[in-house]
Amino acid sequence: MISMVYVKDLRWHKGITAGDLADKLGSVGFQSVEMGRATEIIVKMKEAGAKIFFTFTSNMVTSGLRGFFAQLTGLKMADVIVTTVGGIEEDIMKAAGERFEIGSFYEDDYELYEKGTNRIGNLFVTNKSYEKFEESINQMLKSLYEKQKTWTVSAMLKEIGLMLNDDNSILYQAAKNNVPIFCPAITDGAFGFHLYIFQQDHPDFMVDVVRDFSNILFVTSQDEKKGIIALGGGVSKHHAILSCLLNGGLDYAVYMTTSRAFSGSMSGATTREAKSWGKIKDNSDAVTVIGDVTVTFPLAMIGALENLSKKGVIGEG
Amino acid sequence: MISMVYVKDLRWHKGITAGDLADKLGSVGFQSVEMGRATEIIVKMKEAGAKIFFTFTSNMVTSGLRGFFAQLTGLKMADVIVTTVGGIEEDIMKAAGERFEIGSFYEDDYELYEKGTNRIGNLFVTNKSYEKFEESINQMLKSLYEKQKTWTVSAMLKEIGLMLNDDNSILYQAAKNNVPIFCPAITDGAFGFHLYIFQQDHPDFMVDVVRDFSNILFVTSQDEKKGIIALGGGVSKHHAILSCLLNGGLDYAVYMTTSRAFSGSMSGATTREAKSWGKIKDNSDAVTVIGDVTVTFPLAMIGALENLSKKGVIGEG
Amino acid sequence: MISMVYVKDLRWHKGITAGDLADKLGSVGFQSVEMGRATEIIVKMKEAGAKIFFTFTSNMVTSGLRGFFAQLTGLKMADVIVTTVGGIEEDIMKAAGERFEIGSFYEDDYELYEKGTNRIGNLFVTNKSYEKFEESINQMLKSLYEKQKTWTVSAMLKEIGLMLNDDNSILYQAAKNNVPIFCPAITDGAFGFHLYIFQQDHPDFMVDVVRDFSNILFVTSQDEKKGIIALGGGVSKHHAILSCLLNGGLDYAVYMTTSRAFSGSMSGATTREAKSWGKIKDNSDAVTVIGDVTVTFPLAMIGALENLSKKGVIGEG
Amino acid sequence: MISMVYVKDLRWHKGITAGDLADKLGSVGFQSVEMGRATEIIVKMKEAGAKIFFTFTSNMVTSGLRGFFAQLTGLKMADVIVTTVGGIEEDIMKAAGERFEIGSFYEDDYELYEKGTNRIGNLFVTNKSYEKFEESINQMLKSLYEKQKTWTVSAMLKEIGLMLNDDNSILYQAAKNNVPIFCPAITDGAFGFHLYIFQQDHPDFMVDVVRDFSNILFVTSQDEKKGIIALGGGVSKHHAILSCLLNGGLDYAVYMTTSRAFSGSMSGATTREAKSWGKIKDNSDAVTVIGDVTVTFPLAMIGALENLSKKGVIGEG
Repeated sequence: MISMVYVKDLRWHKGITAGDLADKLGSVGFQSVEMGRATEIIVKMKEAGAKIFFTFTSNMVTSGLRGFFAQLTGLKMADVIVTTVGGIEEDIMKAAGERFEIGSFYEDDYELYEKGTNRIGNLFVTNKSYEKFEESINQMLKSLYEKQKTWTVSAMLKEIGLMLNDDNSILYQAAKNNVPIFCPAITDGAFGFHLYIFQQDHPDFMVDVVRDFSNILFVTSQDEKKGIIALGGGVSKHHAILSCLLNGGLDYAVYMTTSRAFSGSMSGATTREAKSWGKIKDNSDAVTVIGDVTVTFPLAMIGALENLSKKGVIGEG
Repeated sequence: MISMVYVKDLRWHKGITAGDLADKLGSVGFQSVEMGRATEIIVKMKEAGAKIFFTFTSNMVTSGLRGFFAQLTGLKMADVIVTTVGGIEEDIMKAAGERFEIGSFYEDDYELYEKGTNRIGNLFVTNKSYEKFEESINQMLKSLYEKQKTWTVSAMLKEIGLMLNDDNSILYQAAKNNVPIFCPAITDGAFGFHLYIFQQDHPDFMVDVVRDFSNILFVTSQDEKKGIIALGGGVSKHHAILSCLLNGGLDYAVYMTTSRAFSGSMSGATTREAKSWGKIKDNSDAVTVIGDVTVTFPLAMIGALENLSKKGVIGEG
Repeated sequence: MISMVYVKDLRWHKGITAGDLADKLGSVGFQSVEMGRATEIIVKMKEAGAKIFFTFTSNMVTSGLRGFFAQLTGLKMADVIVTTVGGIEEDIMKAAGERFEIGSFYEDDYELYEKGTNRIGNLFVTNKSYEKFEESINQMLKSLYEKQKTWTVSAMLKEIGLMLNDDNSILYQAAKNNVPIFCPAITDGAFGFHLYIFQQDHPDFMVDVVRDFSNILFVTSQDEKKGIIALGGGVSKHHAILSCLLNGGLDYAVYMTTSRAFSGSMSGATTREAKSWGKIKDNSDAVTVIGDVTVTFPLAMIGALENLSKKGVIGEG
Repeated sequence: MISMVYVKDLRWHKGITAGDLADKLGSVGFQSVEMGRATEIIVKMKEAGAKIFFTFTSNMVTSGLRGFFAQLTGLKMADVIVTTVGGIEEDIMKAAGERFEIGSFYEDDYELYEKGTNRIGNLFVTNKSYEKFEESINQMLKSLYEKQKTWTVSAMLKEIGLMLNDDNSILYQAAKNNVPIFCPAITDGAFGFHLYIFQQDHPDFMVDVVRDFSNILFVTSQDEKKGIIALGGGVSKHHAILSCLLNGGLDYAVYMTTSRAFSGSMSGATTREAKSWGKIKDNSDAVTVIGDVTVTFPLAMIGALENLSKKGVIGEG
């Protein structure tokens, strides 16, 4: 990796690799420099053997980042995953073969509604995909209930992951690689609705969220080095940071977000602000990259993967 | 309220009231026009007797909006509240007399850390406030546990509200006025940590989040007119919209946010996008106002309060 | 003005004045606090007798802020104005009686085009308004040319201001009150097109922009206290700051913008960054308020006007 | 280029090229999809032989994009350049060997000031670089003045370009390749200051900005196909669009910006809004990509370069 001291003029040459481009962008300026720093910190946290917390929001699973997240899980670039329930639903839909269409931010939303199409930015998810999800989740809940009556969310998601069979599935790869997935607001989606319906018929069925909080606390320790890659904000970012704070704080932190700090929101809170809380140790390597993660994350992460793969730390993808 | 057809030149006169200014801004342009539309829609939803869902994030409770939210609850401008756990913690801290300092976005965060001061944008919360919270929440959990072993979140928060005695407290006003507070990610904060500690000592203590999802579903119905005032994004916004969607969709919607739609996030999702899902009915009155709610919300809401108070729909504050 | 030390719970009371609300918002949090600081700094710069540079972009003149800017000029709250040419065109259109419609950000833009309607956010300007502008500007250029062949932009704009007769016109109030208006990119609009057409027929007609740069430099001095109220970014903000930098830097600075600092743009550059350049003196009172100025500026400025009017520094509006 | 119909799961493989990654990102979602569309439109406008207007702001020249812009000019990917004066100054500084340091957004700005270092986001330009610029620009103005007394900006910049000798210089490549550079606000920077000083000693020295507006109008025609790649906003974006509007509108448009549309600013104005003005023809290929151009532009453009180079439309870089 090039030392980032002076701005360097960028030049294209035919066939330039993504890894080479990521390196060069580290000396261009503004957010490309921060992206270069993200690459460096990801390499460092992996080489230091830190426990890596990886958080993302459901819209990223709507996008094709889903397969990349699954691949990263297989490559041991994530040790603990925290996400929101929408992403879990859509990962299951896709594992069942559902496809999401690419459209525009400016569709006529009422026309979409009439067609049974739901818009997430410039991507579309159909009602049919939700109906298929309903069928499969009910089957899954039945077989879970046969095993035991009370479940933590992470245990439930591992069990579901093992029922899937799709290399591009986050739940499948996480289950196979013993990476726990935490989801603190499990009822906040169609999944929650089906949990509620299921509980109507099986009143002793219980989801124990308090016990799952102890699970995420015990997934790491004060002694262990800890890193985070937080994509987007909200409850998934906060939950991972909180559990690390309670374990002495983070040694490495990469935040990638579109949110701004000026309104005091968690989503826009920077790695600087986190230091006041002890969430991130003052001597830690930390960076905030501003921009849509569908662009910034693949570039920053591929920069790191190429570097780590060259050193033999990870495989070839 | 002035019909908003042509841009009108704004003029100040000495002693101009906030209600008059809010009216005039409705004919200025850009976000002030959208703010004027928000005022109109809030008036309409109240006059139509719609069930009003009111959602906000915890940073707003850090700010002085907290007292305003409590006042609005007392004025029956909110029928159902959905929020995140941080706001609940800080409402309890403030009810116990803790004060939050106003600082700067550019403090030295490591210095703050050394002093035991945690930064949320340009506001500070001390470790001492968290320690006092620990004492009070433990007392509260004990008295809750004596009544019953399994609690939904909304029932727990009502009980806690009744233990407080502060007119500026959201929990207190909500409890007194029978306004349920939902919090789908209750473990995601210091509150969650204390729940976990309490469960260690009382293993039969259980928080039933699935049952609370049925509570928010049954708080309204297909037949009832429904409105939302969603401040900020995240899980609180999504949870209220989801429960309304499952009840046939919203008739009135005011979103106020700093987030952008371009990355497909829930926080930045507009009222337009919500129509594709049936979350908002196509013929509904809906507006998205972009900006920090510490500025836009008081103005828009005071415009509505002055109007409703003049008509005798609400009291005088 | 309330000292802004601790967060205070906001409460509405019927008939609350805008000045009172602005004061209270100064103790709420996040951008409302920064807005309160803007009010304080505006009061200070006026009371200190500083030369006030006032800059804005053309979209604000499209909006009803135009009348407010004219009023402020009459109240001596602006000593030097810097803006872009679009605002000058629209001020002239409005002075001639043209009205701009309020619409939506989501109109069908091709339909608008077919109707001869041009969209600026949620506001509309018709082709007819541009045609009327063409007539009047040609008359104005003729009478200017009869007086002299070479003009600086500021001299030209003063002459035009004196030809108008509209209390809500910025050019009119500026001319009447001897406030110079600078516009460094005078050709970048319909105005520029008509200058070019006029020069075709009158080849000795010349606009001397270099000489106008000396005019803005000599409008102030090293010795004089200097303040800026910069609304939005771009060339108008930069030009005012540059001329102050060359005169020893600013003592007071209020930036109000929607732009972000993360891409290194001038529009998003903060008052902090300006200190590295010596644009703003280190001991100066400086604040950056993030948000659409159609909302933040009237509130912050009315807070200042009420304060200054109470003290007798300015009149009653 | 892959047809962008369904979301595709992204997978990394070792040594993946930047062109391949750009292709894949076109099927990921949100802004990566819009970036993919930008690549397609750039390829189309080049293959159609459209006249390409290329606009950028000065902060991008501060960054290492400067060398890339110069390379693109040499590759005939830009036929007309419009920019702001700061970029011209810094291109000349860099051509003279000055280097810009990479720092942080959070430096102590007063310390920087004391060291004679000026901050632009996370990049630094020293006072020394400005002093060297003063020496060279004065020599250049002298030799310009010896040739003629009255200059348009574009003629002046071509002459200066020919005095430089740096393959990474935008002015040099533009001059060598007969690509005119327009700069409507030429006085808004150190360059303007030196023009003013020079005019003090040579009162008949004149910069004719009105005549330069006719130059940009005659650089293209109604009949010719026209495309734009507009990076950032402000006067450079607006000036190029305006001159195309007066020539019948654009056939291809790629806007890349961090600004938002919600405040009605030119910088945030989308390609949709431009259609209402006739700036962009309704049947044109147009896209707006949101994000810092130091990340989005290299990726989108390299996607196009690889494609065009494979087809033999351009050389190998």
